[in-house]
Amino acid sequence: MRRILSVLVCLTGVWVFPSDAAEPKADEAAIRAVLADQAAAWNKGDLEGFMAGYWKSPDLSFTSGNARTKGWDATLERYKKRYQAEGKEMGKLTFSELEVEMLGPDAALVRGRFTLEMMNEKPTGLFTLVLRRFPEGWRIVHDHTSG
Amino acid sequence: MRRILSVLVCLTGVWVFPSDAAEPKADEAAIRAVLADQAAAWNKGDLEGFMAGYWKSPDLSFTSGNARTKGWDATLERYKKRYQAEGKEMGKLTFSELEVEMLGPDAALVRGRFTLEMMNEKPTGLFTLVLRRFPEGWRIVHDHTSG
Repeated sequence: MRRILSVLVCLTGVWVFPSDAAEPKADEAAIRAVLADQAAAWNKGDLEGFMAGYWKSPDLSFTSGNARTKGWDATLERYKKRYQAEGKEMGKLTFSELEVEMLGPDAALVRGRFTLEMMNEKPTGLFTLVLRRFPEGWRIVHDHTSG
Repeated sequence: MRRILSVLVCLTGVWVFPSDAAEPKADEAAIRAVLADQAAAWNKGDLEGFMAGYWKSPDLSFTSGNARTKGWDATLERYKKRYQAEGKEMGKLTFSELEVEMLGPDAALVRGRFTLEMMNEKPTGLFTLVLRRFPEGWRIVHDHTSG
């Protein structure tokens, strides 16, 4: 793909970014699918499936309120403690108000709202996600959530 | 610059992104300077100067806790109400724990902490910024803050 673009640059003298092409629509759809898969996994009680949307790296960063969590493993542990420990429930997760904005050919910003329908409460909040394109697909590399 | 890169692509057959070159260091320095200028303006009581670091657009987005503010003007108004209204104080602003990560040639992610030293309290919190490169320089296009 990059070679083809290079040839285009040579032929036309124009710097052609993939982001100038029709690909952002496909990227946006792929990114929305990552989030839809996350919600579906959550609602089956599958926390590891939910975590598949996150970059499986010690450099994943997760900010919630005034606390930072670093790394995929620590983020999974945080979710387990909050939603799968004794007396906890996962509830039904919905994402809404989603806006996907491409930041270049290999990065995107997502703004949105989460809502958890639980037995006796309905916590909701806003999130900012930064995703990067990896060989395996789009993954969240940074999550900032507050409510 | 892009023409020069196109020629490089033609000569070498290699796709050269600016981000592969030494420029990210310069970009990171420019981004850190935007934040340093913001803090300096804040600490002179200059809210408009502080706001110069934000994209002057109706599409600027600012998320704080569970509230979203849209647009530069509305964001300035929010700051005025919170920090310059009667009985309010701006305090001394410090940014710390800053991490700048390039997301491509024209976008960057900044993670960090703000601290406000006020007369009787010291609020602190975490922020996620997304910046884009504009002809006039790097500007924050999205801010998510929580504490």
